[in-house]
Amino acid sequence: MEETFVPLQGIKNDLRGRLKCYKEDWTGGFKAGFRILAPTTYIFFASAIPVISFGEQLERSTDGVLTAVQTLVSTAVCGIIHSIVGGQPLLILGVAEPTVIMYTFMFNFAKERADLGPKLFLAWSAWVCVWTAGLLFLFAILGACSIINRFTRVAGELFGLLIAMLFMQQAIKGLVDEFRLPEREDTSLLQFIPSWRFANGMFALVLSFGLLLTALKSRKARSWRYGTGWLRSFVADYGVPLMVLVWTGVSYIPTSSVPHGIPRRLFSPNPWSPGAYDNWTVIKDMLNVPVLYIIGAFIPATMIAVLYYFDHSVASQLSQQKEFNLRKPSSYHYDLLLLGFLTLMCGLLGIPPSNGVIPQSPMHTKSLATLKHQLLRNRLVATARTSMRNNSSLGQLYGNMQDAYRQMQTPLVYQEASSRGLNELKESTIQAASSMGNYIDAPVDETVFDIEKEIDDLLPVEVKEQRLSNLLQAVLVGGCVAAMPILKRIPTSVLWGYFAFMAIESLPGNQFWERICLLFTAPSRRFKVLEDNHATFVETVPFKSIAMFTVFQTLYLLVCFGLTWVPIAGVMFPMMIMLLVPVRQYILPKFFKGAHLQDLDAAEYEEAPALTYNLETELGAGASCAGDAEILDEVMTRSRGEFRHVSSPKITSSTSTPANAPEILASPHPTFSPRVSGLRGERSPHSGGRGSHSPRTPGSSSTLGKSPSNS
Amino acid sequence: MEETFVPLQGIKNDLRGRLKCYKEDWTGGFKAGFRILAPTTYIFFASAIPVISFGEQLERSTDGVLTAVQTLVSTAVCGIIHSIVGGQPLLILGVAEPTVIMYTFMFNFAKERADLGPKLFLAWSAWVCVWTAGLLFLFAILGACSIINRFTRVAGELFGLLIAMLFMQQAIKGLVDEFRLPEREDTSLLQFIPSWRFANGMFALVLSFGLLLTALKSRKARSWRYGTGWLRSFVADYGVPLMVLVWTGVSYIPTSSVPHGIPRRLFSPNPWSPGAYDNWTVIKDMLNVPVLYIIGAFIPATMIAVLYYFDHSVASQLSQQKEFNLRKPSSYHYDLLLLGFLTLMCGLLGIPPSNGVIPQSPMHTKSLATLKHQLLRNRLVATARTSMRNNSSLGQLYGNMQDAYRQMQTPLVYQEASSRGLNELKESTIQAASSMGNYIDAPVDETVFDIEKEIDDLLPVEVKEQRLSNLLQAVLVGGCVAAMPILKRIPTSVLWGYFAFMAIESLPGNQFWERICLLFTAPSRRFKVLEDNHATFVETVPFKSIAMFTVFQTLYLLVCFGLTWVPIAGVMFPMMIMLLVPVRQYILPKFFKGAHLQDLDAAEYEEAPALTYNLETELGAGASCAGDAEILDEVMTRSRGEFRHVSSPKITSSTSTPANAPEILASPHPTFSPRVSGLRGERSPHSGGRGSHSPRTPGSSSTLGKSPSNS
Repeated sequence: MEETFVPLQGIKNDLRGRLKCYKEDWTGGFKAGFRILAPTTYIFFASAIPVISFGEQLERSTDGVLTAVQTLVSTAVCGIIHSIVGGQPLLILGVAEPTVIMYTFMFNFAKERADLGPKLFLAWSAWVCVWTAGLLFLFAILGACSIINRFTRVAGELFGLLIAMLFMQQAIKGLVDEFRLPEREDTSLLQFIPSWRFANGMFALVLSFGLLLTALKSRKARSWRYGTGWLRSFVADYGVPLMVLVWTGVSYIPTSSVPHGIPRRLFSPNPWSPGAYDNWTVIKDMLNVPVLYIIGAFIPATMIAVLYYFDHSVASQLSQQKEFNLRKPSSYHYDLLLLGFLTLMCGLLGIPPSNGVIPQSPMHTKSLATLKHQLLRNRLVATARTSMRNNSSLGQLYGNMQDAYRQMQTPLVYQEASSRGLNELKESTIQAASSMGNYIDAPVDETVFDIEKEIDDLLPVEVKEQRLSNLLQAVLVGGCVAAMPILKRIPTSVLWGYFAFMAIESLPGNQFWERICLLFTAPSRRFKVLEDNHATFVETVPFKSIAMFTVFQTLYLLVCFGLTWVPIAGVMFPMMIMLLVPVRQYILPKFFKGAHLQDLDAAEYEEAPALTYNLETELGAGASCAGDAEILDEVMTRSRGEFRHVSSPKITSSTSTPANAPEILASPHPTFSPRVSGLRGERSPHSGGRGSHSPRTPGSSSTLGKSPSNS
Repeated sequence: MEETFVPLQGIKNDLRGRLKCYKEDWTGGFKAGFRILAPTTYIFFASAIPVISFGEQLERSTDGVLTAVQTLVSTAVCGIIHSIVGGQPLLILGVAEPTVIMYTFMFNFAKERADLGPKLFLAWSAWVCVWTAGLLFLFAILGACSIINRFTRVAGELFGLLIAMLFMQQAIKGLVDEFRLPEREDTSLLQFIPSWRFANGMFALVLSFGLLLTALKSRKARSWRYGTGWLRSFVADYGVPLMVLVWTGVSYIPTSSVPHGIPRRLFSPNPWSPGAYDNWTVIKDMLNVPVLYIIGAFIPATMIAVLYYFDHSVASQLSQQKEFNLRKPSSYHYDLLLLGFLTLMCGLLGIPPSNGVIPQSPMHTKSLATLKHQLLRNRLVATARTSMRNNSSLGQLYGNMQDAYRQMQTPLVYQEASSRGLNELKESTIQAASSMGNYIDAPVDETVFDIEKEIDDLLPVEVKEQRLSNLLQAVLVGGCVAAMPILKRIPTSVLWGYFAFMAIESLPGNQFWERICLLFTAPSRRFKVLEDNHATFVETVPFKSIAMFTVFQTLYLLVCFGLTWVPIAGVMFPMMIMLLVPVRQYILPKFFKGAHLQDLDAAEYEEAPALTYNLETELGAGASCAGDAEILDEVMTRSRGEFRHVSSPKITSSTSTPANAPEILASPHPTFSPRVSGLRGERSPHSGGRGSHSPRTPGSSSTLGKSPSNS
């Protein structure tokens, strides 16, 4: 994206791009069939549970003015509107933790002012929303989003880790509170005598750790050894909601022996209770706010506008990372404009506004990539089987598969890289096939040619880009308002476990986090990082620079986190994060070499394959015994959160160079001198492949590189 | 061992053999220095905690006649005597779960007889011990132990799994009881009102799962990436006792808010309390037992004799498995004779007798193998470093190392395989070195020659065979009697967690368990077993036979387990296990092919290496950057319990055969026909290597096999 600041230009471009694929956004979604339910449920839970819990948090900090009903309504309404008329349908909207923090600051300010007080808080915050919306319109029209490319990894990942810290803080705080007297309930009840309070706390520990551990395990179900294939897929797709159900069920086991309030469950008014409607009529109070405060509302509004501008854009950016190979265009400017309208609407309705959320938005894209992979795979496997039955040659087989693949493509194709999937699919496999001693024109049979494995290896990462999953999840969130009596059966301790789960799930793939782990890795063990897939900086940047960069980033993170605790000045924390953009651009280059900085802050997750042989490729046709989709499953159950763009293997001779690779991390050994520049040099002939697609699984890329020496 | 039944011959042989190395048993132990404390503490905890808990169990089931004081005294006294005058010092003695079950049966019988009653129970059981001792003398003198070779894997592993089930049963029962009213305490106390009882149960869940999970994690500390080397070693060596301390500490955290009895802690009288002495004078009551009961005592005595004969021999056998490469001779006959004396002594003192215990005895050998490996390694690395500093050639280097190695050897050498360590060490490395392009006479330097890695790869598994660790642990167990007031601070829930830990720790390496897991593995995933190290039967026996054999063994196990629940007839359960020996010898061969049976019931854990390349060998000298002992650590932290004897790699060409290997497990694919016999044929030229030593780590063996194709 160019940095053009011609008014309205960005919005026009966005609209033009998205309108072209608008129809396909819907038809594509419906064509996916019932499978669309897997990503939908996954995102619905990831979206609804935090929103409910933020509602609880808001209720405590605003003395009941705002509750889970308001946060759910805001998330649902904004989500539905965005999924229908928004630009980027991969983006998930919701009431986020930073919004909760800002609203808490605002309430604390308002309730101490005699001429505002809790009564006029919503009216005043409506004014804040009005100002915020105005600023967002301005940003959108003036093309502020065209500097999105300057929001590099360093800022986005710092923000991601801040969100993870806030989630984890909430989980710990929630668990500690389970041992304490709740603030707003009748403390003379049986369940609040010390013994039952202690029992409640211990029960909460069991439930939350139970949920956390089983949810983490269930996400890896695809690589389990036990159970049938469909069971494993089911657990991997729906395991987390399932575990919420299971542990809610467990919480009812000791029901006969314990009093009613143990374990504590969600506390929220039903939407039809009296008092739950107060906020909807806030618009008539707006003119009662003193003029001074109407003007003063501009100050928090700037902060919220900056926050939303940053948060919305980064969430959108993270859900459209290069490694996802998206086909449809982005829509930063138009989405920001829409966010302005949504904020205005929420303000006037007296509900907290929603914006693009992390980690749900990238989670959404990832789950849709899994879906698309399954769809493509099933289709191509079927095509290949048919071809084989007709005794096709390898050439014909790929011709047929190519046709099938083309039919599955989105008709609207924007990026120049669009047609590569097919060609590379054909070329690389024919190359591999001929090195295996097969002729292109001879009929192929399954003993030589393992369809499923080949297809898995060659299919590029693609995402089922559509609007249906977003719309459905938003509708389901809306349904939660009606389902409040059912939701209230979930123990709060299960929520805390879920918060910890979300925090942990967002860590893998975050290079900032990986670098922190690297700092704590014993020097003698650092070479182990190279055994797994790893980001390029591990090989190209000296450890000292990695350490300095990471320590700087950590200190910055801690300052941001600390700021959220400061009573009133804490309102400034969005500024701190925005400030990182100029810091990265103008200050960091003074302390770090340009090349190092580029690798440490790479725009996409370009990674080097693990320095090891891969069993699947070694076994060749033998692995076909595996029957169903072993390799796919492994790709999809990597504990790392992101799908990665694997750079071409830079080392072709397996005997000489890999031995030297770990040197860089092994400074204590004086006999080896780090050959950073040497390794960089070796990589350059291949680095042309950075932008283009290269095979995804590390195994396949190393086969291609190594096949001459193996066969 | 030949099957000779010449009276006293076996005992004479045993004594002759063990006397020759008796002095070295002590000097060797003292030479190991403070490092001997790691195996000692490990075994002390593994021995003391169950014994204390069995004491609690006995106290409940004998109405307080026997307590933890008696079980601890029996374990300590028998352990001290055995470690000093016993034959095989690797064998750990203790009061075992089967003994507790037998004593429970006996007490239930005695207390219902008017002319015996609880008062004469100990006197009667003294008579049982007298008879048992007589039978054991008879067995020992007549050479019953020479049929020990017929106690094949199938019987030993079934017994091992039965013990694991009894441990797990105790863990679950204990946890459930934490929610219940205890039987023998004043139930009007504050901690027994429903709310505190529930709180206690939940707290118990937290503590026991906390202990279980952290103990399992800590055993793998050597392969952690974080923390310094000594910290990782320390946690791996002492992690389990450490975790008992940590979780006992955690149990004191809520001390101010909860009543005194929560969580429940060990309940045992101090040894100086009145009534704790009653049993010591049992000998004077023995003649008060009616003659009929004195004769009738023969019936339980046969059962106990059979049980002890089996249990003691199998525990001894499992601690002397072939893969440990022991240098000192076995002592089955003499140890059984000594057990007779110990049983007699315990009976007359009115304490339950001790016998060789599983899984503590094999755990003891394993921890001593780790110790020996560390000692050997440190010495050889130092020698190699000195040689390099003097610019030695590879030939000289190995000469020096060979000298050092010889000095570390036990001077008494029995088995013919004794001198192999050296020669193979030299030969295989010179071969590897020359394939790497080094000349034997050229000076070596560390860039080419990675000392620590080479040494780790080539060192055979050896065990520090001595008596000190056994004596020390027994003395420590004795110390527990005095330390009762301190031990009583351990929460019972921590004990239940420890029981579950012991049960789980005993599973890896048990092929019976591995076959059960294989049955539940999805057919499409069975090939994954081949990716890890695996027992040979996986490749050589058709899946159907594996399944049949395993189902039979499981049913047999369930019958044995069920029998321990039957009130009086349960006394027969040792017979069921002994019965498995003739069943294996005469009945099973009618249902299974001889060759299959031999692989399914292989005497030693001969295993095939994983069908994959090994990173360490690929990286070659590069891995030396790792600095400290990565490879060693990986060897020692394998999650499988046994050190294994890896068979020579049967597949030398990496491209052709491995692809076919998974076929056997993949019957659904019709295109592949199982080539069982083919694979067996290929193995035979190498099978001469079964008895002899082959390199231990799968990595090293595959390098040797594959080096021509790699270099």
